[in-house]
Amino acid sequence: MMRTRPLKVALLGCGVVGSEVARIMTTHADDLAARIGAPVELAGVAVRRPSKVREGIAPELVTTDATALVKRGDIDVVVEVIGGIEPARTLITTAFEYGASVVSANKALLAQDGAALHAAAEDHDADLYYEAAVAGAIPLIRPLRESLAGDKINRVMGIVNGTTNFILDKMDSTGAGYQEALDEATALGYAEADPTADVEGFDAAAKAAILAGIAFHTRVRLDDVYREGMTEVTAADFASAKEMGCTIKLLAICERAADGASVTARVHPAMIPLSHPLASVRGAYNAVFVESDAAGQLMFYGPGAGGAPTASAVLGDLVAVCRNRLNGATGPGESAYAALPVSPMGDSVTRYHISLDVADKPGVLAQVATVFAEHGVSIDTVRQQGKDGEASLVVVTHRASDASLSGTVEALRSLDTVRGVASIMRVEGE
Amino acid sequence: MMRTRPLKVALLGCGVVGSEVARIMTTHADDLAARIGAPVELAGVAVRRPSKVREGIAPELVTTDATALVKRGDIDVVVEVIGGIEPARTLITTAFEYGASVVSANKALLAQDGAALHAAAEDHDADLYYEAAVAGAIPLIRPLRESLAGDKINRVMGIVNGTTNFILDKMDSTGAGYQEALDEATALGYAEADPTADVEGFDAAAKAAILAGIAFHTRVRLDDVYREGMTEVTAADFASAKEMGCTIKLLAICERAADGASVTARVHPAMIPLSHPLASVRGAYNAVFVESDAAGQLMFYGPGAGGAPTASAVLGDLVAVCRNRLNGATGPGESAYAALPVSPMGDSVTRYHISLDVADKPGVLAQVATVFAEHGVSIDTVRQQGKDGEASLVVVTHRASDASLSGTVEALRSLDTVRGVASIMRVEGE
Repeated sequence: MMRTRPLKVALLGCGVVGSEVARIMTTHADDLAARIGAPVELAGVAVRRPSKVREGIAPELVTTDATALVKRGDIDVVVEVIGGIEPARTLITTAFEYGASVVSANKALLAQDGAALHAAAEDHDADLYYEAAVAGAIPLIRPLRESLAGDKINRVMGIVNGTTNFILDKMDSTGAGYQEALDEATALGYAEADPTADVEGFDAAAKAAILAGIAFHTRVRLDDVYREGMTEVTAADFASAKEMGCTIKLLAICERAADGASVTARVHPAMIPLSHPLASVRGAYNAVFVESDAAGQLMFYGPGAGGAPTASAVLGDLVAVCRNRLNGATGPGESAYAALPVSPMGDSVTRYHISLDVADKPGVLAQVATVFAEHGVSIDTVRQQGKDGEASLVVVTHRASDASLSGTVEALRSLDTVRGVASIMRVEGE
Repeated sequence: MMRTRPLKVALLGCGVVGSEVARIMTTHADDLAARIGAPVELAGVAVRRPSKVREGIAPELVTTDATALVKRGDIDVVVEVIGGIEPARTLITTAFEYGASVVSANKALLAQDGAALHAAAEDHDADLYYEAAVAGAIPLIRPLRESLAGDKINRVMGIVNGTTNFILDKMDSTGAGYQEALDEATALGYAEADPTADVEGFDAAAKAAILAGIAFHTRVRLDDVYREGMTEVTAADFASAKEMGCTIKLLAICERAADGASVTARVHPAMIPLSHPLASVRGAYNAVFVESDAAGQLMFYGPGAGGAPTASAVLGDLVAVCRNRLNGATGPGESAYAALPVSPMGDSVTRYHISLDVADKPGVLAQVATVFAEHGVSIDTVRQQGKDGEASLVVVTHRASDASLSGTVEALRSLDTVRGVASIMRVEGE
């Protein structure tokens, strides 16, 4: 039996995502009502520029006073798609104080203040859902936090930023350099005018913090995530990757240490074998690979951004939060009981692909190999190429701690016979 | 604050899946308790052969009287991993009557009697969860029914049977025939001694019925699903597929008609382009491709069977059901409000790849082309190859109703110049 009093939704932000949320709430109102068990009503839309024409949204719903909207007292669910830290954080906290549950797409805020926001939600018996904050439309938060709740997740490795994947895919398929590929991404609207948050890995790092927290039942903050952007990846790196049967992706990697006693989270470009499912993720798509004790290897793939895909995730959460509200219950909140220490990057175990420019004379390889051995780093393959009195050495290592690997590189740089370290890249997914 | 009285779980069946469920419940008891908010206790295990040694399960928990276990009255959750229709159906119904919620991995039962079982659950304010019934460890039911609850799903297309994917992958990669590949699958334990349920598509059809029901908010029964097995796929079909840049997969396809007013569900082998994400699903893995209005294209990938992966899905449901119970709430039940008619196979829109053995004389192509035109089927490509006075014609059609396509084939068979129809295969994923 359907309740007739509608659930009231306040929408904060009406940009690319918000306008899609409003549109679908209107055009699919009957479906949403049937799935929730009660109608949902758009009770107000807070915007910055009220003059902008917003098709399908009644003008009397539009306000510039987001705080007043949140404080109305009759709002059941606040949907926050403003982004950024403030005023989003204060509005969400206020929403809880005034009895609403919250659906948010705000990865930066969740990565920075997730624990405090979850606590505020719990204090007020409210829900805080944020499927849209990571990997857009791809159902990921809910599968990790609910479907795999009976399993032990050991690793989450994903392409969680569409802009950088578009650029790297373009470099891979056309041989273009970074700047050329970035220019194309900008022209096509895949990159913003200031692409820093994407290309320097800040966006991916925020998502890595959220994913690691959920996967390992441990608080992981943005500051805990090692971050390296992809602006220095070159066409030459792609050529090296191809020789190894690999491509290069910007990966967010959250791992449990082998002994299970700590976790790491990092974002950096890495070579992965073409046979790995993540290697074939093209264009602006996202994909996340999850490894767990019982389930084994899972992958989730889909559009990582865009108005409609992100709205899909927001509305899925909206349905769940409304259902919880009708049930007088709340969904799973923060789960941080494991409270594992987050280790620094030096403790991450990975492989390196290192290109060295070396003097073309006998004994160089022996010298180089000795440096690896002294740092306890085992070499997988070495390829030596001579050209015009110079030579290049390409070394691929076995797995070792990142600290040992960077120590090795440091020592290599100080060898007289090493003229330069042309590139260093981690190798993942094997 | 954690409740100290444990939730009691009755496990029905202790085979490959059940023993893994019991093992993880024991070894990960602390994690499960933390995630649920109360400890869970294995209160009894119903088996057929009590003499079999079951490592890690206290002998006093083992019983052959499943009915008595379910009727104890103190059971919170019944986990049914027996499979088959009876006694599973009666035990589940009894479980609801005695106040328990149910987690099941039983695709055959859900596909046949899902509506009645959901009604029984609802009558008793209990949960019926069955993530493990489709695609093993892959979170799929929950994403479809919760994450995409605010979206409109138009198509679900997947590889949902690991045995047949193993066989087809083997045929593709080695050029082996069906029987040879089946023999290898049997030897390696991927196929059962009687592989009928897998290779004839019964297993996939049950999963298609469940997926279509959830995706379209409509009751879809096993009988509604068109089913064609893969025992007649030949090495020659794979050769034809390769020429088209395709491979062959046994697909479960659930589609909403273009006008939105009806749905179809079908299982059959089909050619799909190598560039399609489903084409690269190897071995016994499963993957499901979902297309929706707002989210666009999503894919879910992982192990589709096996003790531990299936147990992962069962335990994820167990955590959710236990949490609901502590909250005094229930999760989403059956959602069949859309009640769309399920159209027969003839209404499905698809493409055909048809190989004809024809007389090698002028005018044959014109005759054949006329038959297609008369049935309103548009031809995409034709390839004609002569050999020893005979010729073969390979025709690939544009999209048309399956009824028009099979009418065309029927008419082609009656042409004097057509000596035989060597193969017919649907083409999907473009």
